[in-house]
Amino acid sequence: MNTYTVKAFGTEAADADLKELKIERREITPTDVEIEILYCGVCHSDLHTARNDWGGTKYPSVPGHEIVGKVTRVGAEVSKFKAGDLAAVGCLVDSCRTCDSCKQDLEQYCLNGFTGTYNGKDKHLGTHTFGGYAEKVVVDEHFVLKVPKNLDLAAVAPLLCAGITTWSPLRHWKVGPNSKVAVIGLGGLGHMAIKLAKGLGAEVTLFSRTPGKTEDAKALGADHVVISTDEVQMQAVKGKFDLIIDTVPYVHDVNPYVTTLNINGTIVLVGYLGGLEPILNSVPMIMGRKSVAGSVIGGIAETQELLDFCGEKGIVSEIELIKMQDINEAYERMLKSDVRYRFVIDMASLKN
Amino acid sequence: MNTYTVKAFGTEAADADLKELKIERREITPTDVEIEILYCGVCHSDLHTARNDWGGTKYPSVPGHEIVGKVTRVGAEVSKFKAGDLAAVGCLVDSCRTCDSCKQDLEQYCLNGFTGTYNGKDKHLGTHTFGGYAEKVVVDEHFVLKVPKNLDLAAVAPLLCAGITTWSPLRHWKVGPNSKVAVIGLGGLGHMAIKLAKGLGAEVTLFSRTPGKTEDAKALGADHVVISTDEVQMQAVKGKFDLIIDTVPYVHDVNPYVTTLNINGTIVLVGYLGGLEPILNSVPMIMGRKSVAGSVIGGIAETQELLDFCGEKGIVSEIELIKMQDINEAYERMLKSDVRYRFVIDMASLKN
Ligand SMILES: [Zn+2]
Ligand SMILES: [Zn+2]
Ligand SMILES: [Zn+2]
Ligand SMILES: [Zn+2]
Repeated sequence: MNTYTVKAFGTEAADADLKELKIERREITPTDVEIEILYCGVCHSDLHTARNDWGGTKYPSVPGHEIVGKVTRVGAEVSKFKAGDLAAVGCLVDSCRTCDSCKQDLEQYCLNGFTGTYNGKDKHLGTHTFGGYAEKVVVDEHFVLKVPKNLDLAAVAPLLCAGITTWSPLRHWKVGPNSKVAVIGLGGLGHMAIKLAKGLGAEVTLFSRTPGKTEDAKALGADHVVISTDEVQMQAVKGKFDLIIDTVPYVHDVNPYVTTLNINGTIVLVGYLGGLEPILNSVPMIMGRKSVAGSVIGGIAETQELLDFCGEKGIVSEIELIKMQDINEAYERMLKSDVRYRFVIDMASLKN
Repeated sequence: MNTYTVKAFGTEAADADLKELKIERREITPTDVEIEILYCGVCHSDLHTARNDWGGTKYPSVPGHEIVGKVTRVGAEVSKFKAGDLAAVGCLVDSCRTCDSCKQDLEQYCLNGFTGTYNGKDKHLGTHTFGGYAEKVVVDEHFVLKVPKNLDLAAVAPLLCAGITTWSPLRHWKVGPNSKVAVIGLGGLGHMAIKLAKGLGAEVTLFSRTPGKTEDAKALGADHVVISTDEVQMQAVKGKFDLIIDTVPYVHDVNPYVTTLNINGTIVLVGYLGGLEPILNSVPMIMGRKSVAGSVIGGIAETQELLDFCGEKGIVSEIELIKMQDINEAYERMLKSDVRYRFVIDMASLKN
């Protein structure tokens, strides 16, 4: 298969900084869309993959799965896009398209494994996939999203991962104007969860460990802030929430939040992959038909639905725009949660 | 409030055998139904309450919440029942009737606490409630169920606890002809879960630790039996089930069962109250939008629905009929799981 070379930013090893390098993109096939990348959001997964924190990273590693850009070329069979259109790509660029999950537009749960936008197995080239820290990307049109024209393009980028990761559970658990939703954690995911739950008409509460975030949370749309370390405040919201979106990325006690669920309520983990310690107590779950669940990103149709919804409601992410060359410093700041609320790379900087 | 004395069987202390004793029942109020108890199922909760295994038992303790009998008298305002009717009473005899749960026919999740059929707070007499190991019981008609005429009355009794405890999650999680349901454990609850899931048209699998139960499970309606200690068999059902009813009453590892859930699947705990050890791993939950949930008994309308369904389908429990005087021996056998699948007391024996 023919390829061509593009400029990118990535790393050759877990302990090396990211730097400029060259990667190969495939020549477009009849169903492919070529996108000039204008903006790319910076997700915690980018950092963990670059540094091999989860194992399994293939090098060179080029992260980035919150991609927004402009279509430059399309294959002969592409019908949804033409050159000049805005386009976006999220966390997945391929899936089997034939399994039960894929047939239900749940490509994120593809039973044969979806292809991640980076560090996935590239079915065309046999190598691993390279993400959005690059000049261009080539993706099958099924996995390319349309972008509303009325939004700040840079601030749209985080919708492709942080946005859809919180949107999918809000929709799956049918959040609407009568719902009481809580969000645990106010980072990239948490701030999107607040905006989107509010956009759906829900009453929204942020659980925070410290009072310092109250003003920011309310500015983002939260109706209430509950300090989770304050027993009195926790007791006051016992049995309140229909859905809790738990964005905390490290091990933490889920039990106190379960007691704040209403009958039939669900707490859905979207941030923490690992063992639930301290151990989960089944008693409040049984005595209130409560669920502890998990959810990962979202399907393609659902991501399009999110982008359309954000276009209608004027919702975007809160971002700090950075240059590609500042990515290593940005990673260090992310590790200290020193970002409000998402870094987005202005990819024009890669041309310099 | 006027009361009258009835013969019952109960215990005066955690370490004493059950024996004949006298208890007081209230004179019927305008909304009450008086029932002559013909049969009473023997639930594990009876044993644990009698022996104060969970703490909080009030003595004398008269267990029994799988009650089937005949109406002897009704209050002036009672419209659903008349003397001579068959009637049944399950795990609850009262609730606030005004909270959000009660208004949704979810009396089992009454936010003000339902009144258990035994060891609950008796709102009329100010004492604690006495269960079905007795000649008669007096219950508000809202909490009294109608019994189909075509069923073996003794074998109906366990529907009131073991039946509804498994029926409620089957209905809440919308099990039907296209569902794949698994049941963990083949005791009083497990054997009802198999019969009811099968009655709803589902494909039913029993998880068992030993091959010895295969024939029995299939006779009860299971399509498949998976030996949960056999890695190959467990691997073969990975990702298969929409709903798993986990009836195991002691601490056990839930993780291997989570991996057998389909995308969007739920494992619902109905038997074990306590900490989930070893710790639950969120990874398969997140990567397949799977839920771990709990459920307790069922509401009154749902219990009536179950009894009507069983009448239509001819479903009853498998039972061993015993005399009231054999209850202490029956408890010992239950502790060894030596019962197929539920003891039911022939209350005529109490007259002897
Ligand atoms: Zn991401
Ligand atoms: Zn697939
Ligand atoms: Zn019971
Ligand atoms: Zn109530």
